[in-house]
Amino acid sequence: MTNTQVSLLQLDNYGPWTTTPEPRREVDLQTLQSRLFADVAQLVGAREGYAFFGRFDNMVAVTNGLDRTEHERIQASLGNRYPVTASVSIATGETPAAALGAASRRLQESGSAQDRSRREILRGDTVADRTDSDVQLAHFDVDDATGKYTDQLNEFDTFIQIEQGYAELMKYMREAHDSLSFFVGGDNVIAVCSAMDEAAYRDAIDHVHDAVGVELKVGVGRAKTPQDAGMTAKHELERCREEGTAVELGW
Amino acid sequence: MTNTQVSLLQLDNYGPWTTTPEPRREVDLQTLQSRLFADVAQLVGAREGYAFFGRFDNMVAVTNGLDRTEHERIQASLGNRYPVTASVSIATGETPAAALGAASRRLQESGSAQDRSRREILRGDTVADRTDSDVQLAHFDVDDATGKYTDQLNEFDTFIQIEQGYAELMKYMREAHDSLSFFVGGDNVIAVCSAMDEAAYRDAIDHVHDAVGVELKVGVGRAKTPQDAGMTAKHELERCREEGTAVELGW
Amino acid sequence: MTNTQVSLLQLDNYGPWTTTPEPRREVDLQTLQSRLFADVAQLVGAREGYAFFGRFDNMVAVTNGLDRTEHERIQASLGNRYPVTASVSIATGETPAAALGAASRRLQESGSAQDRSRREILRGDTVADRTDSDVQLAHFDVDDATGKYTDQLNEFDTFIQIEQGYAELMKYMREAHDSLSFFVGGDNVIAVCSAMDEAAYRDAIDHVHDAVGVELKVGVGRAKTPQDAGMTAKHELERCREEGTAVELGW
Amino acid sequence: MTNTQVSLLQLDNYGPWTTTPEPRREVDLQTLQSRLFADVAQLVGAREGYAFFGRFDNMVAVTNGLDRTEHERIQASLGNRYPVTASVSIATGETPAAALGAASRRLQESGSAQDRSRREILRGDTVADRTDSDVQLAHFDVDDATGKYTDQLNEFDTFIQIEQGYAELMKYMREAHDSLSFFVGGDNVIAVCSAMDEAAYRDAIDHVHDAVGVELKVGVGRAKTPQDAGMTAKHELERCREEGTAVELGW
Repeated sequence: MTNTQVSLLQLDNYGPWTTTPEPRREVDLQTLQSRLFADVAQLVGAREGYAFFGRFDNMVAVTNGLDRTEHERIQASLGNRYPVTASVSIATGETPAAALGAASRRLQESGSAQDRSRREILRGDTVADRTDSDVQLAHFDVDDATGKYTDQLNEFDTFIQIEQGYAELMKYMREAHDSLSFFVGGDNVIAVCSAMDEAAYRDAIDHVHDAVGVELKVGVGRAKTPQDAGMTAKHELERCREEGTAVELGW
Repeated sequence: MTNTQVSLLQLDNYGPWTTTPEPRREVDLQTLQSRLFADVAQLVGAREGYAFFGRFDNMVAVTNGLDRTEHERIQASLGNRYPVTASVSIATGETPAAALGAASRRLQESGSAQDRSRREILRGDTVADRTDSDVQLAHFDVDDATGKYTDQLNEFDTFIQIEQGYAELMKYMREAHDSLSFFVGGDNVIAVCSAMDEAAYRDAIDHVHDAVGVELKVGVGRAKTPQDAGMTAKHELERCREEGTAVELGW
Repeated sequence: MTNTQVSLLQLDNYGPWTTTPEPRREVDLQTLQSRLFADVAQLVGAREGYAFFGRFDNMVAVTNGLDRTEHERIQASLGNRYPVTASVSIATGETPAAALGAASRRLQESGSAQDRSRREILRGDTVADRTDSDVQLAHFDVDDATGKYTDQLNEFDTFIQIEQGYAELMKYMREAHDSLSFFVGGDNVIAVCSAMDEAAYRDAIDHVHDAVGVELKVGVGRAKTPQDAGMTAKHELERCREEGTAVELGW
Repeated sequence: MTNTQVSLLQLDNYGPWTTTPEPRREVDLQTLQSRLFADVAQLVGAREGYAFFGRFDNMVAVTNGLDRTEHERIQASLGNRYPVTASVSIATGETPAAALGAASRRLQESGSAQDRSRREILRGDTVADRTDSDVQLAHFDVDDATGKYTDQLNEFDTFIQIEQGYAELMKYMREAHDSLSFFVGGDNVIAVCSAMDEAAYRDAIDHVHDAVGVELKVGVGRAKTPQDAGMTAKHELERCREEGTAVELGW
């Protein structure tokens, strides 16, 4: 059993803002979004959390260890530095999917993502009794992506391979394992997991291979905080590389 | 016929750097990548180009209007401000896919993405005789994504919908139309297109709907520079919204 | 008596780097410096500290509440994201000037600021027994700067007024009160103070007025952390504005 | 004779914004200001201009080569990415001081810096007939600052030396030579100059030495664009360093 605390950050009324009074320059929107995400990553990361860009206007973070006050501060800090504001909904659950489901519902009950009068909502609960196995993170990458793809194919065809692998993995991990997988650049995917065991990871890797032919490997960590779990996962992934294995668990 | 100039920016030896001497904190990598992309977007955007984050360690930009010297400056500016460097390969072609293919090959001939001695390569040609129809950009979004998904579902399930739609579109547009489609946040995808006509866009939208059930609409622009083409595409997409249409071409 | 913990962040071998192998573009250096400072401000601020840009290549932060591990993390985070590294020296003292003196000596003993082999030094001690009056911060501004200067003069002449006031204040506060004053933009100066009382602040304000004719007012706060002291100082400065007073102490 | 085009960027109603409805956290203001300046530096720099942070809420840029449309774009780009907006006033003149005086007046005529209804004003003229000697930039530094100060003194006492030198130089250059000098970090000052000759620079250096005991040296460049003039100035300053001279002119 894991006990994941998940925070959903949703930009308030962002879609309409991007086209009001007229469509804003795309380059500015791209800059705004990616820098805002970088700031969220740093603010959450300063307290041992992990943030994912997701759709950029809806970001998901694993926040075990951050209390309500720290979420308020992140929200205020964004409001002080950007032309848009963010609503935040926090929830916990035995699986990451359940936690994000609860966080999503709470936010939806407060109004639409495109409601002009819904601004800087903050809702939710944080994990109370914390243990060393609350957070389980898995770090996947594509086996020899540079040798097989990057150094061989049209970069877009490499990108297609990575994306097909990711799209398949994210769907399967959600449906079969209540886990949330995020592409984090290169050929890397980080998943916020339920209490999956080695067989479950092998199952996911096999599924992706069978469905789209992309070969993955994965290191997994478990800890009280996202950063400790994530760092263990990275070390385990290095071990896969050294030993030629597909799944390594850090416990 | 279009005449697209495409630039591939590839971080030099990035994968190994992220784990040397030990895995670096993910939050710093996420911050580095998203800010570096934001800077590329601004540097390319200052000259009317469009940049896409792609896999972050391999970014693709449409750069009609930027000459070699301007690419050198972008490369130097990144080198002056980041702990990693970038190689850049420029190519042109009648289709975006052909151009990126040529750019990819040139870079591959200069050495591996993980070659420690390959640094700050700059290769390629730029478009010489420019016309008002060199660049064709399409701006897609998901029809009523907020009403159908964001305000209803677990955010991850919304994300899955958007991602499945994107994964299908990017693959189909590449295979059927030699066009390069990039997710740009929210429920938006921007495609750098070959000379596609209205029927071709309808075909792509129908394909995605049939394959994964996601309903898209699209505005398209054509111009000498990416920013003019992209801004027209945005206005045309607004027209779709107002008039309830699925495809609008700005010419 | 105050008990200030001061951290000196010094970029390693920065001067030579800016001109090697040839002078780097000034715009990139300006961007690098100001963003690096912004990151230091955020990293220190996430733990209730205050950072000042100072000379940019040498930044001073008040860090009561940040332990050695947190300084290590800040140092590593900069190293992960910039082409330059920073050495950090921490010290405490009954006055801010004494603390910074000790921090400076420690760093100097580790090698020159332009020593090519001195990299990412971390030296020093942090405050052990913390009390609610450890940190005293004063927030000065120029009385009616907008009405008297900004809306009347050549902007450079306004700037000269502000700078002359600042140069006089920083010198006097250091020499007479062992306090460290930093310009923070607009017409604002924040001073990290020894245990100055109301008379001492009046003395400083009078000195600046007599020397260069610039009229200051000041709000002062005292707390366990820099951010609490600084926020009180801001509120007290607002009180000066409302009540037409020159000095307000928040205790 | 020089023909300098100067742009004054003034944040609209910034002071009141920082304290409304309550004082905002200083760390966020510092981050906002320094990043906004970094963006201005990049936007102006993409077109060969030079920007200086000045007071941060009032920035000065040398913009020979940037037309009105490019200023509009910079203004829009800031508005798209920050919670505050900027007004911009452009002017030209035979001396930089005269140009900035004209730019300041134009802005003042449009309303107060703290006028709530004055937003995103854009006023002014740009240089029409451009020549290779329009812009003259001087790059000063303190002779052996590392050896004499940084490696010897309490960092604040080093900072005091640099600041006293700067405060004296900025005032004298303005009064005696109609030139605008900006501290740019470390021990460096860049001055936007009138048509000063070698004797004039010696005079300024001697004045600072006599007044506050700080020893400066300077390299000077002249060109059509700020970046070319500034890069020449940097090379000339390197020549001072190599040859032990105090003034080097690049023509």
